[in-house]
Amino acid sequence: MSVYEKLKEMNITLPPLSAPVAAFVPFVQAGNLLFLSGHIAKKDGKPWSGKVGSEITVAEAQLAARAVAIDLIGTLQAATGDLGRIRRIVKLMVLVNSAPAFTEQHLVADGASELIGQLFGDTGDHARSAFGASQIPFGSSVEIEMIAEVR
Amino acid sequence: MSVYEKLKEMNITLPPLSAPVAAFVPFVQAGNLLFLSGHIAKKDGKPWSGKVGSEITVAEAQLAARAVAIDLIGTLQAATGDLGRIRRIVKLMVLVNSAPAFTEQHLVADGASELIGQLFGDTGDHARSAFGASQIPFGSSVEIEMIAEVR
Amino acid sequence: MSVYEKLKEMNITLPPLSAPVAAFVPFVQAGNLLFLSGHIAKKDGKPWSGKVGSEITVAEAQLAARAVAIDLIGTLQAATGDLGRIRRIVKLMVLVNSAPAFTEQHLVADGASELIGQLFGDTGDHARSAFGASQIPFGSSVEIEMIAEVR
Repeated sequence: MSVYEKLKEMNITLPPLSAPVAAFVPFVQAGNLLFLSGHIAKKDGKPWSGKVGSEITVAEAQLAARAVAIDLIGTLQAATGDLGRIRRIVKLMVLVNSAPAFTEQHLVADGASELIGQLFGDTGDHARSAFGASQIPFGSSVEIEMIAEVR
Repeated sequence: MSVYEKLKEMNITLPPLSAPVAAFVPFVQAGNLLFLSGHIAKKDGKPWSGKVGSEITVAEAQLAARAVAIDLIGTLQAATGDLGRIRRIVKLMVLVNSAPAFTEQHLVADGASELIGQLFGDTGDHARSAFGASQIPFGSSVEIEMIAEVR
Repeated sequence: MSVYEKLKEMNITLPPLSAPVAAFVPFVQAGNLLFLSGHIAKKDGKPWSGKVGSEITVAEAQLAARAVAIDLIGTLQAATGDLGRIRRIVKLMVLVNSAPAFTEQHLVADGASELIGQLFGDTGDHARSAFGASQIPFGSSVEIEMIAEVR
């Protein structure tokens, strides 16, 4: 099944490319590597904010991370024109806006990683770092940066 | 206009390559990609320190980020011998030493991104992540890591 | 002297590849670049936890960083089958679980960088970013991500 068929089956609509809020671009290709800017979690078009572990729960933060993954895949679509051109999702860097004692950043990041696995199969097997940021732009709960390889 | 002409017009002098304070090197080239170490903000040769949002303002932190960008371009000069060899500024990772409630890391990062745009034009269009670090070496206010592509 | 001879001389045993605790893989190769996931510090198989500057000392955190470097080299061994295939250790990103006023992340990171220099010589000369994370999965004191280039 193609990524598009899986997106349809899971009832996921990719967003259009959103304009960065500042002086940078959403992605840059160098050789076969696509470097995607950090995407912050949004809900209904607004920052999905809150410190995980105090203001929002792990379960909600996992949904926020999943939403970021959908936005990143939307950017991959804009960058490639065809998600079938993705050879590999190489790496995610997952920043979790963490309360001081919150130590389950890896569970939050799974909200993104698991969706990527469901959509891309082996092509989606990625390296990953997850850690706590002291804050994220607009107070967003999660920010994710991606590197992907294209054919 | 070349990058050098723009640097002159903007009255910017690139610094010489500064020795790392620890057991690493300022840049490594792998294939066509140049990976630059995190550069911390300095003022008059000393760490430009302070937590943004409590100890220093956004406006000052933007100047600190701009100063880091100048140092990074100095390192690019040392790495390439000729900034005309830069094909693309690929990505910045911008760490802002943030007070707990400070959520404008993207505005701070613009201090670096905008200078790069002014100097490099389209070649300077880069992907970017910006977020809050709980601290930065020497208490510096901003640290930036860069990936660039060379011809 | 080969890396293996140096490991033996320094009485270091590389660990087997450990299974990630979540939905990602320990490394991905894209072109000649190996992207390793963030590895967290462990002691006797458990997270080597603690905030540096309050709960644990710089000296202990340096040992934790050194332990992460050994685990990363174990992953390089699994990825390459032969550490002689490593052309260059390209970059480390070193996250230090930092108390609010702790500003010596670079000294902690040296625990990893110096071991890499001792084992790999010039091949080990790497770019690096080090900064404070507000937390790290499992409360670990140090997390390190690596990029390496292979032949």
